[in-house]
Amino acid sequence: MHSIAIHGGAGTLPRTALTPDREAAYRVGLSSALDAGFAVLEAGGSSIDAVATAVRILEDDPLFNAGRGAVLTIEGTVELDASIMDGRNLAAGAVAGVSQVRNPVALARAVMDHSPHVMLIGTGAEAFARTRDIELVTNDYFKTEARREQLRRMLGGGAHPVNELSSLGTVGAVACDKAGNLAAATSTGGMTGKRCGRVGDSPIIGAGTYADNASCAVSATGHGEFFIRTAVAHDICARVAYGGATLSQAVEAVVMKRLANMGAEGGVIAVDGNGRIVMRFNSEGMFRGARSSDGTQMIGIWPDREE
Amino acid sequence: MHSIAIHGGAGTLPRTALTPDREAAYRVGLSSALDAGFAVLEAGGSSIDAVATAVRILEDDPLFNAGRGAVLTIEGTVELDASIMDGRNLAAGAVAGVSQVRNPVALARAVMDHSPHVMLIGTGAEAFARTRDIELVTNDYFKTEARREQLRRMLGGGAHPVNELSSLGTVGAVACDKAGNLAAATSTGGMTGKRCGRVGDSPIIGAGTYADNASCAVSATGHGEFFIRTAVAHDICARVAYGGATLSQAVEAVVMKRLANMGAEGGVIAVDGNGRIVMRFNSEGMFRGARSSDGTQMIGIWPDREE
Repeated sequence: MHSIAIHGGAGTLPRTALTPDREAAYRVGLSSALDAGFAVLEAGGSSIDAVATAVRILEDDPLFNAGRGAVLTIEGTVELDASIMDGRNLAAGAVAGVSQVRNPVALARAVMDHSPHVMLIGTGAEAFARTRDIELVTNDYFKTEARREQLRRMLGGGAHPVNELSSLGTVGAVACDKAGNLAAATSTGGMTGKRCGRVGDSPIIGAGTYADNASCAVSATGHGEFFIRTAVAHDICARVAYGGATLSQAVEAVVMKRLANMGAEGGVIAVDGNGRIVMRFNSEGMFRGARSSDGTQMIGIWPDREE
Repeated sequence: MHSIAIHGGAGTLPRTALTPDREAAYRVGLSSALDAGFAVLEAGGSSIDAVATAVRILEDDPLFNAGRGAVLTIEGTVELDASIMDGRNLAAGAVAGVSQVRNPVALARAVMDHSPHVMLIGTGAEAFARTRDIELVTNDYFKTEARREQLRRMLGGGAHPVNELSSLGTVGAVACDKAGNLAAATSTGGMTGKRCGRVGDSPIIGAGTYADNASCAVSATGHGEFFIRTAVAHDICARVAYGGATLSQAVEAVVMKRLANMGAEGGVIAVDGNGRIVMRFNSEGMFRGARSSDGTQMIGIWPDREE
């Protein structure tokens, strides 16, 4: 069974906070990325191409905190992080602290495919981008008025509106292709008002992203510091590989017990080699979607699987 | 039982390549760091203080590829990475791509102790250093004539002398204190002639460094890209925590099988909550040392435990 799941961030998100129009816009954005990724799988494409396609679309969508529409640092700039991993051979690529790359996930993919390295940061990562077919943009390209306003409110000491997911948004995808190969990718702008140079879990292989055909593929979203400290993505894979847990049990143990006990809000999406998808979060909501060749198709925001 | 182990890099290192004088110098450097870290434990200090102390001394020693004496990037600069983790509470700190911080492990410790973050990179990390009691130096402080010569030879297309450990050197420490708390720390200059912005496993929590009282503490050294892809440090902890492996079995499986099968040279030092130390490497040599309250005391370079 081939399948794909995506997320667009997890956090405090009461149902009353989303207007019908705004909710509809998020659903359209999620569906667009999900369907494009699923189309890659349907056409016999690889899971690594499917997750790269889906994440790229979410990066381009200004609603989500990745690529265009990413949150601003304390200095009003945008610093982006992303990573991608191929479960076939554990190939991986990651970038952190880039400020001129339109699609950080594409640069992470280029690091994986065309460099001897796994992780490049800052201007060094952008120098590498210039040697590849990677689109560069000005830092202003990423900044939306909504994000400028969020930062202004934060610097002014104002509370965050609860529907902004301003500190927790991130996007990601996991997929299992027709050949049973797994892949995962994650991309983020980090936290609103973050210190320049702060790196969360998204570009950390083992924390925000991990994929191993021997166990599962995971993309995480949440309070990145806790996710690094618990090596969330690798920990889920390890519980499956060594602990005999099902994917569902492993995700439950990490997200609903370990992270929840630490007070760490967030969630993960994961898929195993049979194409079974697990999506769990301990926060009020998580933008997410899933499609499988068995006909499963859902877009969700809150815990109940109403959709 | 309280104990500490340190490493000073692993790689291709034939016995014939080290002159007696040079070998003696490495042994003195290792002993100095080992004894200082062990003294912290003897005095009832914490494992986190012990590993920070030992790694700081290795950073200051120009023989090792961390802090002063670190290898040079392709542009002739020094870019340093480090991380530290406390197994009591999974607190962690990491820095990457810093070029003005005399002791990157001290900055990683400050990130852990005095910021809400786990990882800071580049100039943002250095801006944070300025807000704390962290010594800043010029980039030239780190550069030794031996490292300049290595880079010249590399850029000239010359082969690396086999005794330089130029591409694999890194320093690290793991410790178990009298209370049974575990800690690990790792610091490196990366690879000679590396692309600017390249980050290896040393500052990646879960790859180069991990510590969890529930399983073990690990510091790794080797071909960083492979170590990130396999999440070496967390993988060893997970095999102990979930797979029922002894520390020795877990290290054997990861270093001598998984990494070796990928063609990834390097090794790890590890300690469990009973103070048992395991040091393994699949390369020709690994600078290392260990001391325990049971009287164990050794400094080693090659596989046989002759010392």
